Amino acid sequence: MKGKLIKRLEKLLGEENITTRPEDLLCYSFDATREEFIPDVVVFPSTPEEVVKIMELAWEEEVPVIPRGAGSGFTGGSLPVKGGMVVSTEKMNRILEIDERNLTALVEPGVVTGELQQTVEALGLFYPPDPASLTFSTLGGNVAENAGGPRAVKYGVTRDYVLGIEAVLPGGEKITTGRKVVKDVVGYDLTRLLVGSEGTLAFFTRILWRLLPYPPATGTLLALFSSREQAGEAVAAIIHSRVLPTAIEFVDRGALDAVKKYAGVEMGNQAQALLLIEVDGEEELVPRLLEKVAEVCQQTGGTTRVAKDQAEAQELWLARRAISPAIAQIAPTKINEDIVVPRSELPRALARIEALEEKYGLPIICFGHAGDGNIHVNIMTDKKDPEKWAKAQKAVREVFAITLELGGTLSGEHGVGITKAPYLSMELSPRVMELLKGIKRAFDPKNLLNPGKMGLD
Amino acid sequence: MKGKLIKRLEKLLGEENITTRPEDLLCYSFDATREEFIPDVVVFPSTPEEVVKIMELAWEEEVPVIPRGAGSGFTGGSLPVKGGMVVSTEKMNRILEIDERNLTALVEPGVVTGELQQTVEALGLFYPPDPASLTFSTLGGNVAENAGGPRAVKYGVTRDYVLGIEAVLPGGEKITTGRKVVKDVVGYDLTRLLVGSEGTLAFFTRILWRLLPYPPATGTLLALFSSREQAGEAVAAIIHSRVLPTAIEFVDRGALDAVKKYAGVEMGNQAQALLLIEVDGEEELVPRLLEKVAEVCQQTGGTTRVAKDQAEAQELWLARRAISPAIAQIAPTKINEDIVVPRSELPRALARIEALEEKYGLPIICFGHAGDGNIHVNIMTDKKDPEKWAKAQKAVREVFAITLELGGTLSGEHGVGITKAPYLSMELSPRVMELLKGIKRAFDPKNLLNPGKMGLD
Repeated sequence: MKGKLIKRLEKLLGEENITTRPEDLLCYSFDATREEFIPDVVVFPSTPEEVVKIMELAWEEEVPVIPRGAGSGFTGGSLPVKGGMVVSTEKMNRILEIDERNLTALVEPGVVTGELQQTVEALGLFYPPDPASLTFSTLGGNVAENAGGPRAVKYGVTRDYVLGIEAVLPGGEKITTGRKVVKDVVGYDLTRLLVGSEGTLAFFTRILWRLLPYPPATGTLLALFSSREQAGEAVAAIIHSRVLPTAIEFVDRGALDAVKKYAGVEMGNQAQALLLIEVDGEEELVPRLLEKVAEVCQQTGGTTRVAKDQAEAQELWLARRAISPAIAQIAPTKINEDIVVPRSELPRALARIEALEEKYGLPIICFGHAGDGNIHVNIMTDKKDPEKWAKAQKAVREVFAITLELGGTLSGEHGVGITKAPYLSMELSPRVMELLKGIKRAFDPKNLLNPGKMGLD
Repeated sequence: MKGKLIKRLEKLLGEENITTRPEDLLCYSFDATREEFIPDVVVFPSTPEEVVKIMELAWEEEVPVIPRGAGSGFTGGSLPVKGGMVVSTEKMNRILEIDERNLTALVEPGVVTGELQQTVEALGLFYPPDPASLTFSTLGGNVAENAGGPRAVKYGVTRDYVLGIEAVLPGGEKITTGRKVVKDVVGYDLTRLLVGSEGTLAFFTRILWRLLPYPPATGTLLALFSSREQAGEAVAAIIHSRVLPTAIEFVDRGALDAVKKYAGVEMGNQAQALLLIEVDGEEELVPRLLEKVAEVCQQTGGTTRVAKDQAEAQELWLARRAISPAIAQIAPTKINEDIVVPRSELPRALARIEALEEKYGLPIICFGHAGDGNIHVNIMTDKKDPEKWAKAQKAVREVFAITLELGGTLSGEHGVGITKAPYLSMELSPRVMELLKGIKRAFDPKNLLNPGKMGLD
């Protein structure tokens, strides 16, 4: 059966566009979770028509199809947990159109996020979503996971920029949702249903984006605090003050130490926590916004410093992006959860998570997008040490319990995939799960597209 | 059967909360389409628990449930086309919480849009969506139809402000989607699926809104043009110039005449078309934005005038809102379609629609939200004159064909309901319709909630 499938794929796409070599399969067997599942075959379509053929074949042969962008996801969204075909978008990587009159961009799913950003910026336009992985993550993956990033405080997430999607359904039929308009209320909102669907409903072949004019100026401010909680209070106070920064990033002592030790960057001196805040707007407005934010931070006990120029600001943001790889070096295993709480609950959430460090005897490092209540909680453990691993599992469950108790959600930008599926019932009721399964059935009655994810089967 | 149903309803909710009196039924039999369908009974729940009871009863007795806000919809969304219970939200009209720390509001579905707006404005906060009916339309209805308004150019539509929904499903189970956070990627996006679902998936009992800080200042500018097309070109040029106004409203000569004649307001002197443009931002920024917009309008042949103060600006906006009722007086029947085209296609769309006036010998009046390509095309006819009516029907179909040819959509903010259902297949493919029906089945397997709408049955 497998041999026959491979033969048919070779005939459809050409030998050069499929591989079953063990060393290739290995490369497509993992993502940022470091879990590993070997696919049966990896396929590289170049056009929507080739995707149609692949989906038709998968339907006939009842073989799972796993869409894959850069494999940079944190919850296993692109892993072939039930085998089958990994369908990579890497050969569908063209920006097809930038429409300066309508402020839209049309791209193939394999375009790297940062490439779109730079291309539109050169034209004075702005694509705001900025996941930390933007230099390698793909836009198709961003849509599948509804990726976020620091700028979500002011500019929202991937969902807020998708105007339409061309996609191929299981069975091979191509559909188009949305168009070059902001207002569109004909039928249920399939566009936003596909955003965040984690590759389980349809294979995206084209994405239509809404762009903004590029903001004339930005400014960056650093605020140091003597406790995590105090920094959390400053975030709530900034939001309450009616200023809307572009980003408010939180970094705790553990993360500061790691960046210093492994990336050689000193960000926070002796501070226990730090906020990195960006504002944007008209040239003459930016200094005033920074002043107001500094005032609020000082009132909550912080000391502040404004980046003197673009170079210094960029250095700070590079340091911020270095955190995730740096802390990975502290312990053999890093469990990275991206909980979200209402912003007003941040001080409480941070204090309660801090208490877990002592309770379980594991370092817990917190950093992330405090401005929208989205904190990356990193539990440092060792998968090979049964005792430490068991403790970490308990700590994860307790982090989630605290999050939900404070009115939050288990995932702000990473999705459910396989890693959060066991905890899904803590957040979603059985009836809601039934609805999700009903939607899945409407799109994919044979459960061929990215099976084994999101607790759907 | 009907007698038994009424008895059970009386027992559940109290006699004072249900009515079958013919004069009452009449009041709940129509909406802004002026179509008429008499319900069997009208019910007035005050709490989510009462809605649960109603939905349980409807499930048992297999009676249609038609959610109803203010009945201000333009496509028949609240009409009981298959009889059954109209369930009015008018007793569920409380603003439950305004959370100034998280910039959110929690409301019942029967709250009037303008009331929320005024309440949050008094606290320095902003709820941007502004459908023309905002002084009487309800937020529940706005969510069901994904209402828009002029400010969508900069601020988006209702969808962009809904953070979460509490709703009762057919069968009576209550679900909650979303929470007080901007980022939330756990499961498919049921929140946005419910927005714009036209009362066919669930009965909303509570809505959680995202609010913004209120913009410090606004400014209004009037630009007069010697043709519709020229005004359309100015819109495209403004967007291309990288300025993002709050609103760009278009008014043609026919609408100007009607406002003058029936509302006694002179807006446009001898102009053939007019743009009413609002910008907002920091106090000192607003004059500069107005200047830039004026320059662009002049370059495309317009003459411009800035409203000297808030009073004059308000007068202009009142005149704009008077258009819809004023033109209704021109002919016995007004067919009001709210097509959307990509903004760059506006000049072409307006020119082609103008040509239909002559072709069919009917006045066609265009006005609306040009800034996002959303134009209200009003075909003036007489339903009682078979010849005129037939011509109007042909003109409607041709307006839609032009719209789709230019990459647009049949409805920007009014929805499908019953009036646009016959045209749905012009825009949505059979496979997409199947998907919509599959989603409907997952929520409402007995087809009890607002049946006969959106071409779903």
